Amino acid sequence: MIVVLGKGATDEQIREVCQRLEAVGYQSAVWRGVQRTVIGAIGIIDEQVKDRLIEQLESLPFVESAIRILRPYKLVSREWKEDSSEVTVNGKQIGSEYFVVMAGPCAVESREQLLRAARGVKAAGADLLRGGAFKPRTSPHTFQGLGKEGLILLKEVSEETGLPVITELMDARDLEDVMEVAAIIQIGARNMQNYTLLRAVGQVRKPVLLKRGLSATIEEWLQAAEYICIGGNDQVILCERGIRTFETYTRNTLDLSAVVAAKKLSHLPVVVDPSHGTGKWDMVIPMSLAAAACGADGLLVEVHPDPANAVSDGAQSLTLERFAELMQRLQPVLQAVGRKLYQSPEKTLSPAPVAEP
Amino acid sequence: MIVVLGKGATDEQIREVCQRLEAVGYQSAVWRGVQRTVIGAIGIIDEQVKDRLIEQLESLPFVESAIRILRPYKLVSREWKEDSSEVTVNGKQIGSEYFVVMAGPCAVESREQLLRAARGVKAAGADLLRGGAFKPRTSPHTFQGLGKEGLILLKEVSEETGLPVITELMDARDLEDVMEVAAIIQIGARNMQNYTLLRAVGQVRKPVLLKRGLSATIEEWLQAAEYICIGGNDQVILCERGIRTFETYTRNTLDLSAVVAAKKLSHLPVVVDPSHGTGKWDMVIPMSLAAAACGADGLLVEVHPDPANAVSDGAQSLTLERFAELMQRLQPVLQAVGRKLYQSPEKTLSPAPVAEP
Amino acid sequence: MIVVLGKGATDEQIREVCQRLEAVGYQSAVWRGVQRTVIGAIGIIDEQVKDRLIEQLESLPFVESAIRILRPYKLVSREWKEDSSEVTVNGKQIGSEYFVVMAGPCAVESREQLLRAARGVKAAGADLLRGGAFKPRTSPHTFQGLGKEGLILLKEVSEETGLPVITELMDARDLEDVMEVAAIIQIGARNMQNYTLLRAVGQVRKPVLLKRGLSATIEEWLQAAEYICIGGNDQVILCERGIRTFETYTRNTLDLSAVVAAKKLSHLPVVVDPSHGTGKWDMVIPMSLAAAACGADGLLVEVHPDPANAVSDGAQSLTLERFAELMQRLQPVLQAVGRKLYQSPEKTLSPAPVAEP
Amino acid sequence: MIVVLGKGATDEQIREVCQRLEAVGYQSAVWRGVQRTVIGAIGIIDEQVKDRLIEQLESLPFVESAIRILRPYKLVSREWKEDSSEVTVNGKQIGSEYFVVMAGPCAVESREQLLRAARGVKAAGADLLRGGAFKPRTSPHTFQGLGKEGLILLKEVSEETGLPVITELMDARDLEDVMEVAAIIQIGARNMQNYTLLRAVGQVRKPVLLKRGLSATIEEWLQAAEYICIGGNDQVILCERGIRTFETYTRNTLDLSAVVAAKKLSHLPVVVDPSHGTGKWDMVIPMSLAAAACGADGLLVEVHPDPANAVSDGAQSLTLERFAELMQRLQPVLQAVGRKLYQSPEKTLSPAPVAEP
Repeated sequence: MIVVLGKGATDEQIREVCQRLEAVGYQSAVWRGVQRTVIGAIGIIDEQVKDRLIEQLESLPFVESAIRILRPYKLVSREWKEDSSEVTVNGKQIGSEYFVVMAGPCAVESREQLLRAARGVKAAGADLLRGGAFKPRTSPHTFQGLGKEGLILLKEVSEETGLPVITELMDARDLEDVMEVAAIIQIGARNMQNYTLLRAVGQVRKPVLLKRGLSATIEEWLQAAEYICIGGNDQVILCERGIRTFETYTRNTLDLSAVVAAKKLSHLPVVVDPSHGTGKWDMVIPMSLAAAACGADGLLVEVHPDPANAVSDGAQSLTLERFAELMQRLQPVLQAVGRKLYQSPEKTLSPAPVAEP
Repeated sequence: MIVVLGKGATDEQIREVCQRLEAVGYQSAVWRGVQRTVIGAIGIIDEQVKDRLIEQLESLPFVESAIRILRPYKLVSREWKEDSSEVTVNGKQIGSEYFVVMAGPCAVESREQLLRAARGVKAAGADLLRGGAFKPRTSPHTFQGLGKEGLILLKEVSEETGLPVITELMDARDLEDVMEVAAIIQIGARNMQNYTLLRAVGQVRKPVLLKRGLSATIEEWLQAAEYICIGGNDQVILCERGIRTFETYTRNTLDLSAVVAAKKLSHLPVVVDPSHGTGKWDMVIPMSLAAAACGADGLLVEVHPDPANAVSDGAQSLTLERFAELMQRLQPVLQAVGRKLYQSPEKTLSPAPVAEP
Repeated sequence: MIVVLGKGATDEQIREVCQRLEAVGYQSAVWRGVQRTVIGAIGIIDEQVKDRLIEQLESLPFVESAIRILRPYKLVSREWKEDSSEVTVNGKQIGSEYFVVMAGPCAVESREQLLRAARGVKAAGADLLRGGAFKPRTSPHTFQGLGKEGLILLKEVSEETGLPVITELMDARDLEDVMEVAAIIQIGARNMQNYTLLRAVGQVRKPVLLKRGLSATIEEWLQAAEYICIGGNDQVILCERGIRTFETYTRNTLDLSAVVAAKKLSHLPVVVDPSHGTGKWDMVIPMSLAAAACGADGLLVEVHPDPANAVSDGAQSLTLERFAELMQRLQPVLQAVGRKLYQSPEKTLSPAPVAEP
Repeated sequence: MIVVLGKGATDEQIREVCQRLEAVGYQSAVWRGVQRTVIGAIGIIDEQVKDRLIEQLESLPFVESAIRILRPYKLVSREWKEDSSEVTVNGKQIGSEYFVVMAGPCAVESREQLLRAARGVKAAGADLLRGGAFKPRTSPHTFQGLGKEGLILLKEVSEETGLPVITELMDARDLEDVMEVAAIIQIGARNMQNYTLLRAVGQVRKPVLLKRGLSATIEEWLQAAEYICIGGNDQVILCERGIRTFETYTRNTLDLSAVVAAKKLSHLPVVVDPSHGTGKWDMVIPMSLAAAACGADGLLVEVHPDPANAVSDGAQSLTLERFAELMQRLQPVLQAVGRKLYQSPEKTLSPAPVAEP
């Protein structure tokens, strides 16, 4: 940590800062410049103590700022663990040379809808089935998901098709129910800083997919992942799903550079959700290819057998045909960057070329 | 709702849209323009059906957009209830001609700290004591609050000083415990879209202060309030606490125009948190005065008897002396806009002039 | 400056950084921590050399970051000049205990429109007349201003009413023409980083009002002001006019905390434009009062004798009656914070109460 | 256009709106709903008249909003011209099946630096040489470019290497000088709404590359392009270079979805600047591959023979070796999406693998 004192800092002020640093176990070193005095804190101290100290120092009127040198997370960092982590789901490795595709409807609506979706995405080469039983919705007037009934349908369809399931947990009290069905527990963007939930999934031993919050910095996203790891659960998958910016043409702004950054700063695998990331079905394929090209470890895509009659997110869902097209177009791009799919997409479909404007 | 069809919409496409509108109870009216065809949906239908329909229509390739005309909330709107609502706490009306001030430390640290803070803010004219027992913290390495022990201290100090308490609820499972202590339940910015929590506090009959999320639009904030009201709890107070923007000098960007907007769109009272809104103690007084001038109904301010030794948020906390100064400077500004404090601030303190640059 | 080297920095790498620092005139000091090595640069060197050096150091793979300690502007800073600067226009001091109000139409439309506006705002107590001859418009299909004809009208109306004029300069080639008419030259938000223009107005000896760019940080805004001061023109007035955020209810998000910050960091006067800041006429009065309360030195307000027939910005313009009401409501708020208007507003008008929701 | 009137609109108010619509040539159609009255404007009128009308209508207290149905640009839209446009530079087509790469230093520093850069990027397969003679810099204390001397060096090096040049124009008064050197005139992000400059380059007959402004929506970017086209110059290339968001890890947030959107909405070619888009050299290669995968028509990349001694933007510049690596890694990705480079990159260099974290 570096503490910057304003112009004209007195000896007494400098002494006060040094004493505070040393009181918690730092060594201190003082540089008196012409315009500023800078005091360096050398050593490693408890993070909780450090955070408190920074706030306290900044409350002193003569302290201009207290600047962190080390990043505020540890277990999820590349410095802590240099090799990339892989999260295993049903024998498949997320974060490996294989690119893992999770696909399915936004919400579980009915047995028939889910089964059609599952069979379709499986045929096209998906590795997991996504589908929400509990749905976080901005408006209280909107469909909120089938709840536990949805979980039962997910379990049935998973058994029938052999596809493992990823589904969202919104309430820690539902954890046990979700654990029975899900191969991966999803934490949604709106809950990225729901610490009750993060602590709950930190206690279990099951993969967790953590979506980046709408306005979360990459650093905060990694800190949220740290909450889970600290509990003892290191099977965390990060998911970039678009951030909120001033742009309104897209539902969110998909930040693919965050994939590159997260993979550099952390050893955890990173996947991309191009459906929420753009909010428009006709942008999903090109953004998925871009995600594959820049080094993402997989995709989470909304696919619906009949988007025009979906109960939610129809506007951003691919049809089964489009999804098959996505999988076929992904393959050469993955190959170009030295990666591959677990299942080669079937060639029986002859999809129309991607939506040209 | 208005549905816009792209150039060259066919009769069949127009018919499909009309049928979909009529199927849910709308009347439809078609305008064929030169460049676009616009189809209006007239009537009032269930919000859940409408939301789904919008998504479905937008999934049709020939539909350019489906535009809402009515705002997506009802119970919290001025149209639903024209008169401003007042929320009564201990005989004081929030949302009335009185300007209500809630002050105290970020976190409950100890009996002594809380008691000193409570006595100080009471003497200076505060109406409620704020203090966090459960703390949402970005980093898992940081102090997370005293939890239930903190609630007990709040209760004791409240009884000793006669100040009612506002404190944050983070986990629906703690609702009963919080209810025993709090006169107002606070929902934090990070939980503004934690629907589990919103539904829980919608079930009780106690005032709820709902902070605006870091990246929540005013519309989403009102929708979150609607979640609470729909449960039957209409004692909701909105709290603007700064939004996330590109500016880094301040911790957040305090959006005072949101106070004006929220009071125009909704009948609910609106208060301002200038401490989180700026993150800097020396900006709290001027921004508090501005909040009073533009029509806010009150303040939520962080005050600590010794910020330089606070366990959290020291950098944005006022000392007791500064808080007394704030109260004295608030009074004439409130008077200038036709409002007043419940308790005139004591004049015994002679605070230093506010930090001039 | 502080240079942070990654974990495991070698002696040679440390030496390279030290040599680079010393080559430009710094002394260097090395702290080897457990996780990072930090190298401090002590001394004052030319800003141009420093900027280049930071970029160069960050291009070295073993350098994690190079952190500035001093702010990247000088002449406009409070450190350079502790006392607040006042800019004198027609014998009135902007930045003094007087609060200066500049009002008038967005665009000059006709002699009659301008004259009615000028007489109205003068009667209500305005100090300057605003009005655009050159208009920056997002769309090329929109009215672009009357140009030089507009300047002539401004001159005539200024002479007739005795109100000095503030008007926008968009093209350095029009500088001489604008100088003949304007008492204050306005640089618009879109041109805040048009360095050609900044340099041009730095060469003249006339007050310049510099609007904050839509996405400019406070630091960048002050750097833009520095461009003008470096040319030798220190009569710069800063103007906060709203920044671009994710919120769409308002046209921009008026950042009043930037007023407080700019006045702390800089000695320059700061005024507020609540018209562009909100984009809605019914938010202009409350936000003006807030600006006065938090310490702004004046206002720049759009007023039109007939907004419903204005050629531009009708939606955010006050009528003359509303403007008179604003002036009357400003007075007690200014008094509450120890300031005053040059001209007391006339009491002859009995305006309707401000739009309550 | 659609005009929405508040609840309880009177017949007189409806009549006023209809009369205003009809006065400018629209037909009007009224829908009275239960909660709102909606008035549709049918027909095509002059854009300038329409813009003014929208503002005027919104100034009426009983009008809730006036909503555009058509996009506010025409010449640059896909509706105006369905086929993708190609811009020809030295016999190469930007916007064709070929992917065009423009590379070189941020700023022209010296003949030797420029020549080394030009030879290096040419050998690696670049199609154009980029290099700034006039530099827009945030700080007035920073290197501002060599100016006309830089133009001369660009001309010499262009002739020597045969690479056509792209360079930035900052001041309309330099247009002639820049035209003599540049095959493409660059308009920088900070000048995207410098209408003086846009009009100037609209008058010439030379390709213009228009960077997206830091906080410009896609719609505003296309409107800026429209300014150029309206002047008669339709050789416009759009360039996405990152937008300003809350994220601070990257210099800007590169918005690749804007490439997909711009290509859908407009017929103009779109290229990507991954150097400014990320601000970090080690993110340039993965983001370039992503740009190629999602359908961009080319790249504008900063390359410096010696970034550690560059006078500007060293931190985001590729070395010649890294650039050669980029070109080699681009080729298979382009092939995977059905595109190609004009020049196959030489295989003589054996670059190190891209920086793995």
